[in-house]
Amino acid sequence: MTAPITGILTPHMVPLDGQGRIDEDELARLVDWLIGKRVHGLYPNGSTGEFLRFTVGERRRIVEITCQAAAGRVPVVAGAAEANVAETLAACEHCLDCGARAVAIVAPFYYRLPAESVYAYFAAIARDSPIDVTLYNIPLLASPIDVPTVARLAAEFPRIIGIKDSSGDIGQMIRLLAAVRPVRPEFAVLTGWEGALVPMILAGCDGGTHATSAVVPELTRAAFDAAKAGDLATAFALQHRITRVFDVVFGGAEFPEGFRVATGVRGFKMGPSRQPATAEQHAARARLADRVRRLLIEEGIEGIK
Amino acid sequence: MTAPITGILTPHMVPLDGQGRIDEDELARLVDWLIGKRVHGLYPNGSTGEFLRFTVGERRRIVEITCQAAAGRVPVVAGAAEANVAETLAACEHCLDCGARAVAIVAPFYYRLPAESVYAYFAAIARDSPIDVTLYNIPLLASPIDVPTVARLAAEFPRIIGIKDSSGDIGQMIRLLAAVRPVRPEFAVLTGWEGALVPMILAGCDGGTHATSAVVPELTRAAFDAAKAGDLATAFALQHRITRVFDVVFGGAEFPEGFRVATGVRGFKMGPSRQPATAEQHAARARLADRVRRLLIEEGIEGIK
Amino acid sequence: MTAPITGILTPHMVPLDGQGRIDEDELARLVDWLIGKRVHGLYPNGSTGEFLRFTVGERRRIVEITCQAAAGRVPVVAGAAEANVAETLAACEHCLDCGARAVAIVAPFYYRLPAESVYAYFAAIARDSPIDVTLYNIPLLASPIDVPTVARLAAEFPRIIGIKDSSGDIGQMIRLLAAVRPVRPEFAVLTGWEGALVPMILAGCDGGTHATSAVVPELTRAAFDAAKAGDLATAFALQHRITRVFDVVFGGAEFPEGFRVATGVRGFKMGPSRQPATAEQHAARARLADRVRRLLIEEGIEGIK
Amino acid sequence: MTAPITGILTPHMVPLDGQGRIDEDELARLVDWLIGKRVHGLYPNGSTGEFLRFTVGERRRIVEITCQAAAGRVPVVAGAAEANVAETLAACEHCLDCGARAVAIVAPFYYRLPAESVYAYFAAIARDSPIDVTLYNIPLLASPIDVPTVARLAAEFPRIIGIKDSSGDIGQMIRLLAAVRPVRPEFAVLTGWEGALVPMILAGCDGGTHATSAVVPELTRAAFDAAKAGDLATAFALQHRITRVFDVVFGGAEFPEGFRVATGVRGFKMGPSRQPATAEQHAARARLADRVRRLLIEEGIEGIK
Repeated sequence: MTAPITGILTPHMVPLDGQGRIDEDELARLVDWLIGKRVHGLYPNGSTGEFLRFTVGERRRIVEITCQAAAGRVPVVAGAAEANVAETLAACEHCLDCGARAVAIVAPFYYRLPAESVYAYFAAIARDSPIDVTLYNIPLLASPIDVPTVARLAAEFPRIIGIKDSSGDIGQMIRLLAAVRPVRPEFAVLTGWEGALVPMILAGCDGGTHATSAVVPELTRAAFDAAKAGDLATAFALQHRITRVFDVVFGGAEFPEGFRVATGVRGFKMGPSRQPATAEQHAARARLADRVRRLLIEEGIEGIK
Repeated sequence: MTAPITGILTPHMVPLDGQGRIDEDELARLVDWLIGKRVHGLYPNGSTGEFLRFTVGERRRIVEITCQAAAGRVPVVAGAAEANVAETLAACEHCLDCGARAVAIVAPFYYRLPAESVYAYFAAIARDSPIDVTLYNIPLLASPIDVPTVARLAAEFPRIIGIKDSSGDIGQMIRLLAAVRPVRPEFAVLTGWEGALVPMILAGCDGGTHATSAVVPELTRAAFDAAKAGDLATAFALQHRITRVFDVVFGGAEFPEGFRVATGVRGFKMGPSRQPATAEQHAARARLADRVRRLLIEEGIEGIK
Repeated sequence: MTAPITGILTPHMVPLDGQGRIDEDELARLVDWLIGKRVHGLYPNGSTGEFLRFTVGERRRIVEITCQAAAGRVPVVAGAAEANVAETLAACEHCLDCGARAVAIVAPFYYRLPAESVYAYFAAIARDSPIDVTLYNIPLLASPIDVPTVARLAAEFPRIIGIKDSSGDIGQMIRLLAAVRPVRPEFAVLTGWEGALVPMILAGCDGGTHATSAVVPELTRAAFDAAKAGDLATAFALQHRITRVFDVVFGGAEFPEGFRVATGVRGFKMGPSRQPATAEQHAARARLADRVRRLLIEEGIEGIK
Repeated sequence: MTAPITGILTPHMVPLDGQGRIDEDELARLVDWLIGKRVHGLYPNGSTGEFLRFTVGERRRIVEITCQAAAGRVPVVAGAAEANVAETLAACEHCLDCGARAVAIVAPFYYRLPAESVYAYFAAIARDSPIDVTLYNIPLLASPIDVPTVARLAAEFPRIIGIKDSSGDIGQMIRLLAAVRPVRPEFAVLTGWEGALVPMILAGCDGGTHATSAVVPELTRAAFDAAKAGDLATAFALQHRITRVFDVVFGGAEFPEGFRVATGVRGFKMGPSRQPATAEQHAARARLADRVRRLLIEEGIEGIK
């Protein structure tokens, strides 16, 4: 399956049961619902998906369930970063076996590495990966993948087929497009920042992958379509609505907890977070759920009770 | 004169003579040339204009010369921030006398003030200013003017008619437009970040004020016109060219020295900076001048020798 | 007068009258009181002294009054940074005429300059200054003066006789002492961070200049003396008390307003700030005054009512 | 074993063989050598030990080997942070079985969590841990553990017996000691910043745990002893030597690669890093090894060839 990486790929969260285990049925139902809402693809084991809070085995199971539930209807780009290159390559192999379209590899995190090390890391993966690789740049949380490094990797490794950039910096995105497109016209450039989705699409991005698309997939899909069609008035009106939802959900709890709450409002049993919370935090999340519910009703989202 | 604040307002530098004094004739010639290149307005005593490196008297003289040279052909929005509110109001009075359309007041700098203090500062100025005021948000260099503060000031003070935002953050700009436009539809919103000029105009900004417009006013004007006309292909092609020039000039020397060098390449005797430089820095600037010259020739800018 | 720059030099604020003008008598009284409290010197026109919110003429007047009131009893190190090198040199001349021991020049601010430019700036001043110069490093507010630049300036310019470092980073201070002392054993190194006063003195600093010394000069002087005498138990006990006062005053209002409030608690009519405040801020400052008053009574500071 | 957590606990790296597997014999030899050099304890699976680049099973094996090699001669404080609370508690159980004195748990990383979440996380671990817990604050790489949170955890959970603070901020350390010692006099406070080791000990810390102690354990032990004995001249002379070594090793390659190089210079076969490097980086590390070798000879460290 070599479907193009384009449009809105949703980085969904993972429903948990009362014991904190993956609720496999609810996860499959969430994937199915998202596809029904016309997302272009799925992005399990991303930052929103809390990849770091699961074990190696659980991350594999999440990819399996997502791919099975998607059943080839939309491409799956699966987070596959593990402790080191060898473990990451094993995860890549598993993603391939599951039928994922590509893997997404976040730049090394915790240690803040310079560009040369970031290059060496992705080069080592790209050399041996059995599946297409997308870079994942999220400079707020991980070592930055700067524009010259993206261009260098894109030029040397056909296996690297795209990037998700969550910097939200449109000036930088314009530089990235200028540096990469002449070398690799088909290189997929996705924005990870929903607050700038429409301008990023207008500037030439192929799509986006953001948490808000699991909350209001109706709006993100419509904004993408309007931007692609050059209908700026509609696109920016939708952008303002997306930003409004994003600000409430993102600002309402420490990331990504607000998205667990909001996915719950959309009708999914998300269960408790693996990150413990105090009684005050639990109360704040209950209030956030109410606020999100009212907002989505105001926004005319169907099916909110 | 109540000309709308829209389009590209150029924050030009100040030519100096061999003794480091303002070269008044060359400044007038620069203003005249910029108007000939179809900039929509002028923005003296901005960050690019090194307002901080001049005395109170010199800043006044710069406004006088700029207004005289503009001769009513385009509006002048003049930087008027002084040591404190009383001094700033005196500068506002002077700008009015000179015929400026409005003043621009940067948020308090050096001390990093909270939103409440930023509000109090602009409120005190707006209450007594005899001339329209534009806010100047440049969070990299001065206390940030956050979106709720802009909305609060816009709602309370008709005297405050606009903002220049140099954050370069398009997500934040979208929030700003959403917060201010319903309250004050005519409130002027200008972007101060040329690397995002076209997306900012598409998102709803009225214009921009950036240093690069004094180097390649042909490109910034054309980009503005194309974006306003909805010709995205042309607008983004121009944006890529503007970014290319900006990156060379901005990256070539510590800000704003690269713009002095580049304005020199456009044919003006800019003189030495008031900020001392080492021999190595002078040599680097000579190399930068060569590089800018070649780049502008490549870009097809007329009149570069 | 070539008194050594050592001990606690107090960066006092400037009392204002009801019209916001300098209250010259109260300023003289404050200076006299500080000397009575055994501060080793005075540091007018520093960051605490809000140098930026006064006019050129007012800054000169502040130096005059401070020097007159000090009357040679303690050295005065006066802030002399002006808009550019020529203006700064004129201020240096004036400080010399007033009888200041040295000037303090903050690194260029607003624009964030690289080390090479910072070097060039201080070199230009040092070459022509008629009075001894101390560097002022406050990386939070101005361009950083890094350790190699201090060493380079110290080696080349006898006119530069010391530095005030407000970074609060003791690891960096140890590097600074290691780099400068072999070249210039007498180079004065003062810390500007009262929360680390005692460790900095133990590490080899000659003294400190911090706002808290105008609030509780009794404690800062005693801490300095104990640290110099090698009485660690007493010194750290005092450090904990100084930190407690600092945290309340510094944390109680945006810098440096808390110090205006606290100087008022010590019995001085400080008047209103030149930075406007909202009604909420004024109320918060009244509460802060109460809190500081109680704290100083708890701390056994004499004369608090 | 309830040995006090005091002195220098060394966070050693893990020797790897040519295939990138743990070289168990060399690891045991390194541990034995460190104990011979009189370190007070060991700190496996810290940031220096690259805990993140090993699998769960490997991290367990590292604790096993370290504890076996230590053989009760010195306490072992073992990093035990895993993907979530349940996995971390399992690791705690394993550390207890191995004979570790305590575990060290870094604050949640990748996601930047607020104080309330950091509290909830450590509370959940402390409630169920079968082994004493030390907090690990490294705000540069992980969510900060602020002073009120440390005080709150110390007051509520006897199971939490100490903290390693790698902020390097001595003002903050003084606040921490002031907040915690009255509640828990025996609470161990260790500094993780070797550039401030001596001042931190003088300020009241119980010890330190830093990478440099695996490179020059002779110097860090002697500095600790001199500081504890109140011999400031000797202590600061040693501090300057430690800083000199640290700056070369830390600055010579991206952390923690310089420490792998330097441990190699001390005579251990460290093998290649799990983080890939380019040819340029490998060459730079060879040069760094030479530089470290010369420096250690200059410093009079015995046994450097």
